Amino acid sequence: MKQPCGKVYLVGAGPGAPDLLTLRAAELLKRADIVFYDALVHADTLKLAQNAEKIAVGKRCGQRSTAQRFINKRLVDAARKFKTVVRLKGGDPMLFGRAQEEIVALRTAGIEYEIVPGVTAALAASADLGISLTRRGIARSVTFVTARVGAGEAGNNWAASAARADTAVIYMGVGQAAEIAAALLAAGVPAALPAVVVENASLPQERRFALTVSDLPCVATAGIKGPALIMLGEVFSAAQETAFIADGSPALAAAGSGISRR
Amino acid sequence: MKQPCGKVYLVGAGPGAPDLLTLRAAELLKRADIVFYDALVHADTLKLAQNAEKIAVGKRCGQRSTAQRFINKRLVDAARKFKTVVRLKGGDPMLFGRAQEEIVALRTAGIEYEIVPGVTAALAASADLGISLTRRGIARSVTFVTARVGAGEAGNNWAASAARADTAVIYMGVGQAAEIAAALLAAGVPAALPAVVVENASLPQERRFALTVSDLPCVATAGIKGPALIMLGEVFSAAQETAFIADGSPALAAAGSGISRR
Repeated sequence: MKQPCGKVYLVGAGPGAPDLLTLRAAELLKRADIVFYDALVHADTLKLAQNAEKIAVGKRCGQRSTAQRFINKRLVDAARKFKTVVRLKGGDPMLFGRAQEEIVALRTAGIEYEIVPGVTAALAASADLGISLTRRGIARSVTFVTARVGAGEAGNNWAASAARADTAVIYMGVGQAAEIAAALLAAGVPAALPAVVVENASLPQERRFALTVSDLPCVATAGIKGPALIMLGEVFSAAQETAFIADGSPALAAAGSGISRR
Repeated sequence: MKQPCGKVYLVGAGPGAPDLLTLRAAELLKRADIVFYDALVHADTLKLAQNAEKIAVGKRCGQRSTAQRFINKRLVDAARKFKTVVRLKGGDPMLFGRAQEEIVALRTAGIEYEIVPGVTAALAASADLGISLTRRGIARSVTFVTARVGAGEAGNNWAASAARADTAVIYMGVGQAAEIAAALLAAGVPAALPAVVVENASLPQERRFALTVSDLPCVATAGIKGPALIMLGEVFSAAQETAFIADGSPALAAAGSGISRR
């Protein structure tokens, strides 16, 4: 006989600001018996889970992390012990969140699950910039990608995808900005195409940098430690002209001699 | 002397389900003096704006709509009369929402504004399907596009963008599914690539159809009237095999002889 099981909710925590959580996610956190959360989830978001055991399982670039297989196992184990299990992921769970591996593990174990979508970082960055990712007459496609630039890695079609879309957003790429710029240029992206880097989108410590694709390696000097997006496309050109992005001199960014800060 | 002005909030209402609204959006609706809303906004979402005058300005394909320029003017006028003006848009305001035209109008008039991002329909559809738009080893890019297939329209790069991304989501395309399929095939998308059509994502009346790119014209017979997404990519192939998408026979969809329903 099958033992009684709880339900696992894979929940998007949104881009960072606690009030960009959905009402459904907030309600689930209040009911949760146990919450497994990513490194980037805001402390105030976790506080909503007032009755829950809270377990950090997050991964950040280059830091030690709980192996994915171990997270999968913990979710299954938790569902056999608790009624409401929340797996809280930064942004949206179905975009660059390795949710599929957790879903497969839950299905295989016969555990009930539900996915609660969230606001992804690119949309929060776009909102804060005041620049739409699509725009009549300029952009009718936007690509979200993660770059893979390590030696010996096959497949550079992320760069082709970014090159063919009117607007492109590269997640988790700032640490490899130089390699990404090289791959984009090789894929045919114009060197002068406007680029914007947004660190900590939606948070008070958000920073924005306005530059061009060829200047992307400059962000290495900006001391970016928070999660950051690289955004490319003609939609960002008006922004440079009018300094809507950065309070610093747009001329600076245009000249590639530095990076203008918010 | 400049007259005192209110502030205009361009707010994403999310994909449809009222509890997929963000906490920030809910709070703003409660405070709103006036709300201009799109056709697809849920009645329960509007109810949150208990003290506000509510004005429908929404557009739906092929129906009469309030001209964009007139909407822009009404927003500016409202900001000169009310403290908190909410412009409520389906999904996320910065993705296919013509927000930029409203932003420019507000900037030009010197009106303060703020954009509140929302959950976009593609992420809600992905959540309901239980299929991640990206997946390790299969998909590291996803493109969101609107198709333009009218006679004499220049630029088919939306199709190239969809063809080069690992996963593609076409918004507002179901009415032109046959033309879209033709453009995708011409852009090099394989005829047998799995496609999923999701109507009314996140709502109780959601319907899902599992087929392939070459079968896309079939959706014309499915009587789709709600907002719908066409989703393409290898990530959806496992779904067809295991009938996770549709309760109908996956063989039906695979044979192209019909469409399986949820």
